[in-house]
Amino acid sequence: EEVAKLLELKAQLGGDDGKHVFVLKTAKGTRDYNPKQMAIREKVFNTIISCFKRHGAETIDTPVFELKETLTGKYGEDSKLIYDLKDQGGELLSLRYDLTVPFARYLAMNKITNIKRYHIAKVYRRDNPAMTRGRYREFYQCDFDIAGQYDPMIPDAECLKIVHEILNELELGDFRIKVNDRRILDGMFAVCGVPDEKFRTICSTVDKLDKMSWEDVKNEMVNEKGLAPEVADQIGEYVSMQGGMDLAEKLLQDPKLSQSKQACAGLTDMKQLFSYLQLFRVTDKVVFDLSLARGLDYYTGVIYEAVLTQSGPAPAPPQQQNGAAGEEGVSVGSVAGGGRYDGLVGMFDPKGRKVPCVGVSIGIERVFSIMEQKAEASAEKVRTTETQVMVASAQKNLLEERLKLTAELWDAGIKAEVMYKKNPKLLSQLQHCEDTGIPLVAIIGEQELKDGVVKLRTVASREEMDVLRAELVEEIKKRTLQ
Amino acid sequence: EEVAKLLELKAQLGGDDGKHVFVLKTAKGTRDYNPKQMAIREKVFNTIISCFKRHGAETIDTPVFELKETLTGKYGEDSKLIYDLKDQGGELLSLRYDLTVPFARYLAMNKITNIKRYHIAKVYRRDNPAMTRGRYREFYQCDFDIAGQYDPMIPDAECLKIVHEILNELELGDFRIKVNDRRILDGMFAVCGVPDEKFRTICSTVDKLDKMSWEDVKNEMVNEKGLAPEVADQIGEYVSMQGGMDLAEKLLQDPKLSQSKQACAGLTDMKQLFSYLQLFRVTDKVVFDLSLARGLDYYTGVIYEAVLTQSGPAPAPPQQQNGAAGEEGVSVGSVAGGGRYDGLVGMFDPKGRKVPCVGVSIGIERVFSIMEQKAEASAEKVRTTETQVMVASAQKNLLEERLKLTAELWDAGIKAEVMYKKNPKLLSQLQHCEDTGIPLVAIIGEQELKDGVVKLRTVASREEMDVLRAELVEEIKKRTLQ
Repeated sequence: EEVAKLLELKAQLGGDDGKHVFVLKTAKGTRDYNPKQMAIREKVFNTIISCFKRHGAETIDTPVFELKETLTGKYGEDSKLIYDLKDQGGELLSLRYDLTVPFARYLAMNKITNIKRYHIAKVYRRDNPAMTRGRYREFYQCDFDIAGQYDPMIPDAECLKIVHEILNELELGDFRIKVNDRRILDGMFAVCGVPDEKFRTICSTVDKLDKMSWEDVKNEMVNEKGLAPEVADQIGEYVSMQGGMDLAEKLLQDPKLSQSKQACAGLTDMKQLFSYLQLFRVTDKVVFDLSLARGLDYYTGVIYEAVLTQSGPAPAPPQQQNGAAGEEGVSVGSVAGGGRYDGLVGMFDPKGRKVPCVGVSIGIERVFSIMEQKAEASAEKVRTTETQVMVASAQKNLLEERLKLTAELWDAGIKAEVMYKKNPKLLSQLQHCEDTGIPLVAIIGEQELKDGVVKLRTVASREEMDVLRAELVEEIKKRTLQ
Repeated sequence: EEVAKLLELKAQLGGDDGKHVFVLKTAKGTRDYNPKQMAIREKVFNTIISCFKRHGAETIDTPVFELKETLTGKYGEDSKLIYDLKDQGGELLSLRYDLTVPFARYLAMNKITNIKRYHIAKVYRRDNPAMTRGRYREFYQCDFDIAGQYDPMIPDAECLKIVHEILNELELGDFRIKVNDRRILDGMFAVCGVPDEKFRTICSTVDKLDKMSWEDVKNEMVNEKGLAPEVADQIGEYVSMQGGMDLAEKLLQDPKLSQSKQACAGLTDMKQLFSYLQLFRVTDKVVFDLSLARGLDYYTGVIYEAVLTQSGPAPAPPQQQNGAAGEEGVSVGSVAGGGRYDGLVGMFDPKGRKVPCVGVSIGIERVFSIMEQKAEASAEKVRTTETQVMVASAQKNLLEERLKLTAELWDAGIKAEVMYKKNPKLLSQLQHCEDTGIPLVAIIGEQELKDGVVKLRTVASREEMDVLRAELVEEIKKRTLQ
């Protein structure tokens, strides 16, 4: 890595000839997708979009940049990671940090009070990403949100059902969905004696529990954020709790926590949520986990996060019907997260009208990384085109005939390729088919043209058969039917 | 418009209560896509991507921003329209201005010498767009390019074939594809007496002929760019010429133009191009037009641009087999453009190795505008979801049963919705189906639950039929088969 840095520096300063040498790279924290990666990406997107559509979602799109003030005050301590555009005269603009704030802005601007929508697009964060772990400064988010005033916890349960469906279908290995509620957290902070004005910052610290030990988290609470050690210890007791509906019931009886109205509201909703999750048959993967905090400021109720519990794809374990996850494996990273944010749209509405919202965001980049590793490990080749047939010839001076036949096939809706050479070798035409997975070759020569036929060759079996030119399209369609 | 500006100003300065009021809008020149627009966008993309895949293309993706110096010196006079990111410490970055320069950077960086790829993504230009005409500062480009050393004009002809296929399939009304060659333009400038160093700037002026009259263009050449009036007049004579292969042949005999080696090379290739276009059966729409210049610096050979010749969709006119277009209608805007750029990749390669490229970019925003207008005018409703069935009830206290049935349907791959209310009215459940085009309703009540059936209602005909619950999935699939 040091060497790479030095080489880059050298390149920037100039090459051996002393001239400024252009640095050939993408911006820090970004990457290109090559055709193979795109083929995998397309497959993943199709799975996710199918799920969103199965749940009746529409889709919208918003611009990649917003007015800077649209993003201001929405992301707490993470605001420093926002990319600003240069002031070139005109409005001050920033690249979107997520898809949730633009969604809320969209709802307020268009006075929409009911919508179930998904949005798949790139977002931007000036983080120092560990790109080996699939984290980038430019990355995709796949968001699904339900906006509207409804009976409690029904849309919330659907969001969790969607996470469950998607993670199952992608076959990424075992996973857990942790659930908590901002009101339970706030109630817990209150009864433990955290001053009101420190709720958000302490919440951010609790959020680090998935990356840091409790000792380090406590240390930050006490030494950096000025909490009394016994207050931190009380928090520590609560945030070690995990369970299912049973835990929510138990905590409703907790002498301290039950004194907080907020906490009770959160716990009652948590019970309700688990009852719907049972109907949706997804409680095997869902854990009520009091250590889950999520850093963003805008959450107001239920929050959740899905983590893979193994580093690689593996067979699913036997189903558990309660939410207990005592034997949970080592968490290797969050692949989905979300929650309820009932106040965000109101921040944009001139009259402060609220639109309750709940949503989930799929951490698709991490999914891409895993799928790419799987593809690497697998023997099966990833095709990057869908070409059905290669129009070829073994003889010279047939370029025009090849082009004519290719155009006929295109016009009939057949996916066809032809080599851009006057006289390519048959071997190189066949080699291209082998390399890219094209299953058929349509070969023409003087004799075939005279006879009104085309020699149709199956690449895998090397079998060849004369097909009447008038029947070629039907024959190709028949043979390439899935 | 003045009023809108004043209102915005007032809002920025503060509302009636004197407080700073947040301006609820998207950035200048950008827009949101609502679900209806997204449904149309999806349809257009599917048509275009199908065509690209039919021609055997792979796809890639690149980041939305590049190192600033990657874009420097590639766009001539348009460079001032590039969006820069704020220097927040680190690299100097700019938003991509098109997809071609990032593609060339990608090829050089990965030492790729052969690829046929498409790339659909947003690009950014700080233009003052006429948004009513479908022009924005953030807009999609759909690019198809062929890189590699091949026999002349074969990939070039395929690009034009693709434009022809796409514009036909989108049914936007009649169109013309204008073709020219940078070498013909340069040769023409040379024999007319334009000094070498003015070729590019005069080329930019000629490029304005589709928006300005010849008088205005001549005026700019003479008064702004310092050309002698008689030189301008000679250029004027050439740029009024239009035709097909015949014109290329005629100009090869032109006593003046034939003295330019460059022009002759371009004219010979133009003849070859038209011979391939004849094989591809697309000459009915292609015109060799010496006034076509295209502003970008990086073109080195063939250039082309497709324009719609009517303001709205209309039936196709009788086919003409030569390229003459004397009776061409009024051009209402470019919908595709491209050309050959053999030098661009070499600009990025440390050793200057060239990779010849030719490509085309579909002006998809203009296509969206037209399709939206068509959808507005049409009686048929655009569906924004694909939901097959609504799970409903006429009775109270059946929320849990509705949720259970809905989850069963989701798990069977059926696209299903359910209302997030404990006791919704049947009428409002049916109304939702009418509003969003859901074709079926699965109704449950106490009796149905007891009998193990579901009442399946067809929304359009209002027919109802009891279906065994075990057979519901199959019945829904059967009824919603296209």
